[in-house]
Amino acid sequence: MGSSVVVVNGRLCKNPNDVTINDFLYKRFNVPGDTNNAQGANATLVDINQFPGVNTQGVAMVWVDFAPYGLNTPHLHPRGSEIFAVVEGTMYAGFVTSSYKLYDTILKKGDVIVFPQSLIHFQLNLGKTDALAYASFGSQNPGRVNVADSVFATTPHILDNVLTKGFQVDEMVIEQLRSQFSAENISVNTGRSILKLLSQT
Amino acid sequence: MGSSVVVVNGRLCKNPNDVTINDFLYKRFNVPGDTNNAQGANATLVDINQFPGVNTQGVAMVWVDFAPYGLNTPHLHPRGSEIFAVVEGTMYAGFVTSSYKLYDTILKKGDVIVFPQSLIHFQLNLGKTDALAYASFGSQNPGRVNVADSVFATTPHILDNVLTKGFQVDEMVIEQLRSQFSAENISVNTGRSILKLLSQT
Amino acid sequence: MGSSVVVVNGRLCKNPNDVTINDFLYKRFNVPGDTNNAQGANATLVDINQFPGVNTQGVAMVWVDFAPYGLNTPHLHPRGSEIFAVVEGTMYAGFVTSSYKLYDTILKKGDVIVFPQSLIHFQLNLGKTDALAYASFGSQNPGRVNVADSVFATTPHILDNVLTKGFQVDEMVIEQLRSQFSAENISVNTGRSILKLLSQT
Amino acid sequence: MGSSVVVVNGRLCKNPNDVTINDFLYKRFNVPGDTNNAQGANATLVDINQFPGVNTQGVAMVWVDFAPYGLNTPHLHPRGSEIFAVVEGTMYAGFVTSSYKLYDTILKKGDVIVFPQSLIHFQLNLGKTDALAYASFGSQNPGRVNVADSVFATTPHILDNVLTKGFQVDEMVIEQLRSQFSAENISVNTGRSILKLLSQT
Amino acid sequence: MGSSVVVVNGRLCKNPNDVTINDFLYKRFNVPGDTNNAQGANATLVDINQFPGVNTQGVAMVWVDFAPYGLNTPHLHPRGSEIFAVVEGTMYAGFVTSSYKLYDTILKKGDVIVFPQSLIHFQLNLGKTDALAYASFGSQNPGRVNVADSVFATTPHILDNVLTKGFQVDEMVIEQLRSQFSAENISVNTGRSILKLLSQT
Amino acid sequence: MGSSVVVVNGRLCKNPNDVTINDFLYKRFNVPGDTNNAQGANATLVDINQFPGVNTQGVAMVWVDFAPYGLNTPHLHPRGSEIFAVVEGTMYAGFVTSSYKLYDTILKKGDVIVFPQSLIHFQLNLGKTDALAYASFGSQNPGRVNVADSVFATTPHILDNVLTKGFQVDEMVIEQLRSQFSAENISVNTGRSILKLLSQT
Repeated sequence: MGSSVVVVNGRLCKNPNDVTINDFLYKRFNVPGDTNNAQGANATLVDINQFPGVNTQGVAMVWVDFAPYGLNTPHLHPRGSEIFAVVEGTMYAGFVTSSYKLYDTILKKGDVIVFPQSLIHFQLNLGKTDALAYASFGSQNPGRVNVADSVFATTPHILDNVLTKGFQVDEMVIEQLRSQFSAENISVNTGRSILKLLSQT
Repeated sequence: MGSSVVVVNGRLCKNPNDVTINDFLYKRFNVPGDTNNAQGANATLVDINQFPGVNTQGVAMVWVDFAPYGLNTPHLHPRGSEIFAVVEGTMYAGFVTSSYKLYDTILKKGDVIVFPQSLIHFQLNLGKTDALAYASFGSQNPGRVNVADSVFATTPHILDNVLTKGFQVDEMVIEQLRSQFSAENISVNTGRSILKLLSQT
Repeated sequence: MGSSVVVVNGRLCKNPNDVTINDFLYKRFNVPGDTNNAQGANATLVDINQFPGVNTQGVAMVWVDFAPYGLNTPHLHPRGSEIFAVVEGTMYAGFVTSSYKLYDTILKKGDVIVFPQSLIHFQLNLGKTDALAYASFGSQNPGRVNVADSVFATTPHILDNVLTKGFQVDEMVIEQLRSQFSAENISVNTGRSILKLLSQT
Repeated sequence: MGSSVVVVNGRLCKNPNDVTINDFLYKRFNVPGDTNNAQGANATLVDINQFPGVNTQGVAMVWVDFAPYGLNTPHLHPRGSEIFAVVEGTMYAGFVTSSYKLYDTILKKGDVIVFPQSLIHFQLNLGKTDALAYASFGSQNPGRVNVADSVFATTPHILDNVLTKGFQVDEMVIEQLRSQFSAENISVNTGRSILKLLSQT
Repeated sequence: MGSSVVVVNGRLCKNPNDVTINDFLYKRFNVPGDTNNAQGANATLVDINQFPGVNTQGVAMVWVDFAPYGLNTPHLHPRGSEIFAVVEGTMYAGFVTSSYKLYDTILKKGDVIVFPQSLIHFQLNLGKTDALAYASFGSQNPGRVNVADSVFATTPHILDNVLTKGFQVDEMVIEQLRSQFSAENISVNTGRSILKLLSQT
Repeated sequence: MGSSVVVVNGRLCKNPNDVTINDFLYKRFNVPGDTNNAQGANATLVDINQFPGVNTQGVAMVWVDFAPYGLNTPHLHPRGSEIFAVVEGTMYAGFVTSSYKLYDTILKKGDVIVFPQSLIHFQLNLGKTDALAYASFGSQNPGRVNVADSVFATTPHILDNVLTKGFQVDEMVIEQLRSQFSAENISVNTGRSILKLLSQT
């Protein structure tokens, strides 16, 4: 087939003869993420976008760095449940069911929590030192959707009427909320930083 | 086995000998939902909770009633993609990708749109008369999570620090937002009304 | 990658940068199908063949137009269960289990019925006016197989011996049945019309 | 838990401590089926109904006995594709796509054919001696639906109007076809015999 | 699209217009495999590698030839459970659970056994004549991993320390074991022969 | 429903009203495993057996403790792929494909490797201090099968003929290998310790 290209799940597949051990390795799973942002946290997904070796394997990992009092902003993963293990620090964490019941708790080093697929969840570092967590997904492509960004930082903006009626506040409040989430701003860092890097290559 | 009970997917399964055509029927798919609420819309899911006959079938429907200018508040379905067809009226609709790009449009009668699984989406009736839509899910249990309720109307409340840091506003704004979503209030009507009825039986 | 082409599920995938809202829209879900055929009904699937936007979404819709006393001929969907909602009219409908038990009923406006995957089912308009139904599938590619066409209208014909022995009638009856289902004829309209259009493009 | 009962996929699961090798064995896969029926063939499914050991394994087998010139009547399997291998004899076999194209061929000993999920297919023994085939399914519960039985041998009967309009013949022909498929009659043997036995236990 | 190439699951898909009945046929399912090897058995998988027609069908078959006292060496199938039916002969067969419990038995002609996905299993011909079995998988690509080959016949060798510590024996024993499984040698025949042929084409 | 019991995937499901945050928590993910065994390593799965909260979530974690030069013995996971991240130490690791090709490498702190489902793999601590790794599975019930235990430590023993022929050595070598893997012995510690504890409760 010479120059032909094989694609599985929309991703290129190497010719088996060209595969090396390097295709199964990812080498930077302890480089601290930049927490110098408004929320003071940085989640780095190692999924099919960073690590093509997980294609068809149905599993991915993430590590989350927290500055003191840093927040991994309320978000959800559209395509996978998560197990989250605290490696360093003490955190307030929780998730919200589709009946709007909040399950929240304080996690210490060695504690593990499950966040079911697509439910909104968060973690807040309660300590005055950095914290660290590892987490896993039962999907090679779990995705991440930050709630605040999805509503107030979209390109283009969602129509005012949708937000004023949806959140039952006037346009000034909506504008105030939007102003916090411009492209140069904040929570977008959490989970977006790698996408930025990728789009520059 | 006499009185034994068979459960599939956590739901009771009738003895095949006791099954009748009624187990495959749902009879109220044209009863208008109550749109007399703050957002002016009402989505009525016909899924495994209302219609046990869809268990293991992997499909569900919903109809959405809109008062004039009514909003089906920004929400997502954790376990299924949606096809949404406008039966009456003209609507502004959209969804937000995990790159925070908004895809929005104006839908007229006969228009169909796809909302991918777990992405936040909405519809706003642009007309001064009632509107109606039918939609379908590739899951018998797609679920529904309203964004505003998930953040501001949980029981119990999410810790203030999570919301002030997550939305980058002060506690007064958070309190203002929360006050709109008390249990007696609003958008909870959208998708919650049936759950209330069920819990009373 | 320039001119490379990405395929998922055997279908072309657009470059994400080229995707627009139009890729998620289908615009003709209220154009009546042509019921001027022998059975007097026309089912129009909006699945991956007409609407590439449903690829990987696992959901599809169909609308069915019925002339007075029109029949949506006995058929099955090989790759998905169906929820069927009557929008206008009164119909006799049923499906047959793999134990050859018939579950049948009369459906009125607002009634919903489930047809399990791959079981033979039908609907007959009992009224002297047009009828209309919407239905949904838990698959982006449910397919449709008409029973009569599959047996008597194949290209080429199934060997006589299979049909005479299978239906326990002589060749004259088989020939009579076949003569009703030539390529210019009838029930093939139900579900075939769009395929014809597509193959001309 | 004493007397509690665990069910998976609607089937009883033994306590692991009570499991023996016998739970993984089926002992009669060479007992010829009774081909003394109108079609002269008998298919014996070894699936979850006869062999509980396949529960959750996603695989099943069948053997088909053919009398001379016997027919495995046109049928389909709603929940699994089939690989069919001729062990003894020569057969005419085929299946019909959802575009009503017939793919047919003559199979000899050692030939294997695939029948895709839910497409109508058949095999006819072309020889004057018995024939035998083994086949496999990628499902523990593939099911079997005979076309003629599903239309003409249901309990109760499908309404005449559906069949006269669906097959475009008058009621006399429908009645003639039905008369061949009474409960005491024929093709029902193919695939139904075991169900009868089971219901007597 | 002219010369474009469509790939599903990493395999080429023919243009539907070019598909013939031959694409659904495999013609050599009774050619005895070469059992002239150290173990005296030969398993011939008819899966997606030999028979592209099973792509997306989720099912495959295998036949296993046994010389007198021949062994189908301990192995596992990473991606599918197996049903195994004895066609000729008497065999000792078994599999080992993840609690290291052995379920073993003697199989006679007509006996069927299930081997769950990825558990190590084997069959040993107990007779002084050839034996034959057919088996099925609920996957089009079940794969096969021989235990001895996976440990002692890899290219390159696994580091000595892993094997001496893993099997708790000294290097001489490991070397003795490895010497039996050079590329020119034995059990590799079981399941590898076809791969060799394919790589030469 | 009073005392009724709901089971999903063969596991008890709590009544939603009785669910608390504790059902989503696992509290001992930093208790070092006992590496005082022949291989000098201990893998502790946190899957559905230890942590019922992962039922239906499709994800699990494991941590692996290594004594100096400790080995996580060659093993496989029948129902899930693995991502393995080194937290402390330097290791030699590898896996073997179904073509018996070894992919091996040296992993340092921060390195991540993928082990595909059901392929045999191992890690060996190359350092004179303890090492630690976290790993994740795309399954709530990945299982673990040690190769040496599965062949030489089964209850009861696999027939000698199978092992002498399968490994091409005489009975003395087999007996030597078996003697290392009695119930009081070694590699069984790796992954078996928790099962022992559970069976005592």
